Amino acid sequence: MITTLESYVRGSWLAPADKGTVLRDAATGEPIARISARPLDYGPVVDHARQVGGPALRALTFQRRASMLKALGKHLSARIPDFTELSLATGATRRDAVVDIDGGINALFVYGGKGAKQLPDSNVLPDGDFEPLGKSGAFGVQHVLTPRRGVAVQINAFNFPVWGMLEKLAPALLAGVPSIIKPASQTAYLTEMVFREIVASRLLPEGAVQLVCARPDGLLDELGPQDSLAVTGSRDTAAALRRHDAVIANAVRYTAEADSLNSSVLGPDVSPGDPEFDVFVKMVATEMTQKAGQKCTAIRRVFIPATNMDAMQDALTARLAKVLVGNPGAEDTRMGALASQGQRDDVRRAVDTLAGAAKVVFGDAHGRPGNFSADADFDAGAFMSPVLLRADDPDREELHSVEAFGPVATLMPYDGADRAAELIARGRGSLVASVVTGDTDFAVGLIAAAAPWHGRILVVDRDSAAESTGHGAALAQAVHGGPGRAGGGEELGGLRALPHHLQRSAIQGGPGLLAELTEQ
Amino acid sequence: MITTLESYVRGSWLAPADKGTVLRDAATGEPIARISARPLDYGPVVDHARQVGGPALRALTFQRRASMLKALGKHLSARIPDFTELSLATGATRRDAVVDIDGGINALFVYGGKGAKQLPDSNVLPDGDFEPLGKSGAFGVQHVLTPRRGVAVQINAFNFPVWGMLEKLAPALLAGVPSIIKPASQTAYLTEMVFREIVASRLLPEGAVQLVCARPDGLLDELGPQDSLAVTGSRDTAAALRRHDAVIANAVRYTAEADSLNSSVLGPDVSPGDPEFDVFVKMVATEMTQKAGQKCTAIRRVFIPATNMDAMQDALTARLAKVLVGNPGAEDTRMGALASQGQRDDVRRAVDTLAGAAKVVFGDAHGRPGNFSADADFDAGAFMSPVLLRADDPDREELHSVEAFGPVATLMPYDGADRAAELIARGRGSLVASVVTGDTDFAVGLIAAAAPWHGRILVVDRDSAAESTGHGAALAQAVHGGPGRAGGGEELGGLRALPHHLQRSAIQGGPGLLAELTEQ
Repeated sequence: MITTLESYVRGSWLAPADKGTVLRDAATGEPIARISARPLDYGPVVDHARQVGGPALRALTFQRRASMLKALGKHLSARIPDFTELSLATGATRRDAVVDIDGGINALFVYGGKGAKQLPDSNVLPDGDFEPLGKSGAFGVQHVLTPRRGVAVQINAFNFPVWGMLEKLAPALLAGVPSIIKPASQTAYLTEMVFREIVASRLLPEGAVQLVCARPDGLLDELGPQDSLAVTGSRDTAAALRRHDAVIANAVRYTAEADSLNSSVLGPDVSPGDPEFDVFVKMVATEMTQKAGQKCTAIRRVFIPATNMDAMQDALTARLAKVLVGNPGAEDTRMGALASQGQRDDVRRAVDTLAGAAKVVFGDAHGRPGNFSADADFDAGAFMSPVLLRADDPDREELHSVEAFGPVATLMPYDGADRAAELIARGRGSLVASVVTGDTDFAVGLIAAAAPWHGRILVVDRDSAAESTGHGAALAQAVHGGPGRAGGGEELGGLRALPHHLQRSAIQGGPGLLAELTEQ
Repeated sequence: MITTLESYVRGSWLAPADKGTVLRDAATGEPIARISARPLDYGPVVDHARQVGGPALRALTFQRRASMLKALGKHLSARIPDFTELSLATGATRRDAVVDIDGGINALFVYGGKGAKQLPDSNVLPDGDFEPLGKSGAFGVQHVLTPRRGVAVQINAFNFPVWGMLEKLAPALLAGVPSIIKPASQTAYLTEMVFREIVASRLLPEGAVQLVCARPDGLLDELGPQDSLAVTGSRDTAAALRRHDAVIANAVRYTAEADSLNSSVLGPDVSPGDPEFDVFVKMVATEMTQKAGQKCTAIRRVFIPATNMDAMQDALTARLAKVLVGNPGAEDTRMGALASQGQRDDVRRAVDTLAGAAKVVFGDAHGRPGNFSADADFDAGAFMSPVLLRADDPDREELHSVEAFGPVATLMPYDGADRAAELIARGRGSLVASVVTGDTDFAVGLIAAAAPWHGRILVVDRDSAAESTGHGAALAQAVHGGPGRAGGGEELGGLRALPHHLQRSAIQGGPGLLAELTEQ
């Protein structure tokens, strides 16, 4: 008998009254767990965060909360093997799981480390210096940041059940703000397993974190002027939550991170045989196949100088042909399953639309992958082949607006940095772009033109390739988010994420008082 | 014959086709100007900003735009006497006009000065330092801020026709982003006069600024992922614009600054006869009467230790009795008119509601002011007396939610810093609070508890009083805005306002490339 996922609210685990909906293994179709199809009574949950969790977190200081994060990171690290085993059910390989699980835990260490090094042993974070506002210096202004008195509601996506939770949680905890976490149903069993370990660690004060494995209906109605809402999900979900009545009426702080059509550009200086050419091929193939392409940061649009289109198509095709698709748990599998057959259906539809403007040059979205492992059951799981498309006319609108959220990318030609930047901008805002080039002028020109459309840009050449963290990796040290279609939000970026949970206030007064305030 | 206000769009002044609506002098009721009652065709206006203004501004650098702001400040300063004369028609006295006109021009100087001192001679603003992401240092991340490629739409309120325009314009221009300015109709004639001087100065590149003296219908439909919308106005207006379809769908950057029920607290250490007592009386009376109380930052809630309620009531009453209400242009007038009789009607209604929970202890919202100048026509203008209320039960809900946007404040008792903070927070987010006290512990405790609810807190004692810039003044050096009811936005704060118009991007790559990018 499979278990029904529980919510952790108001200090205890709550078993739902309904049988709920079955969640299935992405590769085998076997039932994994059930999740409630009913909402909780969210008023008391939000109150618990505000009345119990907030005060308990603020009874600590930035320094003590930083230590808490490091300790939590250590505690969770010891359970990585167990988390990884369960992660296979999401369709992810063990290699994929590193991004989600180890990557998520790493966010705790990064915030713990940066907090310990850079934050005060208080709850008042100075922002800049005292600035006199008169001639004698008897009066001036000191800006400070203090923890908001509300709750951070975090709505996560199915593709990163662990990282999605921890990358949002770490800055909120460090800031001193309690969180309510709503995982996506599809993979909530993994989030719940990690969350049980957080509770079992007894490292966080009661009320600091609560987990909702239930329908969220009514949760947002409870939000007020000190609360925040962070959403990772589709464009439509992000828009619907942004216009929620309580969010609008109370000016609830809102951040969204939505899928986008991220780009990668091969520099005009790079020819087949150059190290950068191989770096590029490897990078694009990795982004297409890691987590079966189900990453918000994955490459969807690949821009190649026209003269190298054929060479790149051949190289990528050869590399993708080697990708063994199948059982995520098997040693030699390079790409597992999509999260569900429903997700795969969406990807197939998107590929069909793209095929109106591009030619499929590798793979078949509807058929069995050419390189499929013998121990996987194609009919039972959500498997599909990587699909590479090629569009020789890059001006077709759908190439820049239709996202296949799976192992799919499209090759397009470009000519010059300005044209590349212009094509990239047609995505109307993306999380990340990458450029592989040894030509610094080309890179600087492209960055200057493309930066306003992106939260992150990666430049790789033969010298930096060995240490490059890759196109898709959203590191805790770098901001993650992007304008427009990418949701208009910003997460991570080290301590840059703290102010999302703090109120900035200009404190005006005499220098003695202001020094006392920031030195307490 | 009075003139009809013109819009400045696409490089020229545009006279409206309709006769429009009459705008009247607040003190005399005489017609001052007409304003169009029809919208413009906004698509080409927005395109002009994006295609002409943006590139022209970005052809300059942060340094050159800073010089431009200083030159514009000097140019406008020469015309202050003319602006001030026209400002009388808004109901403001010459003293009031200093806040709006000189204060607005000062924002240009502050941004010009800070830009010249702290910003690079390029369009790439480094944000933090290079952070290595590997062992050898061959790869790392450098965050940068670059000008967004859209337009900043700025919707201003009637009470600061000059400051409202210039405080929003200065950071946008410095950032390199073109603006479209929509003044409130009621006082748009003064905005238009100042804008004509901006155009005549020829200091800004064409397309950098456009002025809309017309209905705004359709303007927001044009906004896209690189655009921003900044609104100063009522809570309802702010909420309606925040949920606009194009704003939601394109994740248009949005900031609002809305009226709030700002507080002032007299410390428990202060007794009648202390210098701080007099400082407090003067400050509250000034905030009530300056611009006839029509400031988003004006004090609405006045918290007094119970033992001093009577003494404070007596002192404030005596001071308010000396305030001569009448002709804004007369030398001895201390308070002019409200912006319109319609505004006054709103204030009267709010006072009537407040009177259900408080007693009017000075003035009469509906009658002729007791101290009214002989040369003003009470029936023709939008005059009213200052009104002081007193509520001995501070727990009544309406005291913390009903705002009379005029010369009105309510005295309430409190006991201890925690109680003061709790009462203040019932305003659900405010722009500013002030505390007059010589007790540092009390001040620090109150700030720590109240800061999350405010964008600014002012502390005054006998030593800082002489140089204090006052409760109501939104200086360009200090952030302006507040959570919740105050709109949830943030403006000004010196260079803290720049990122509203810039995109932050994490640039990953080798250290040589990243140095080249930020040193160009």
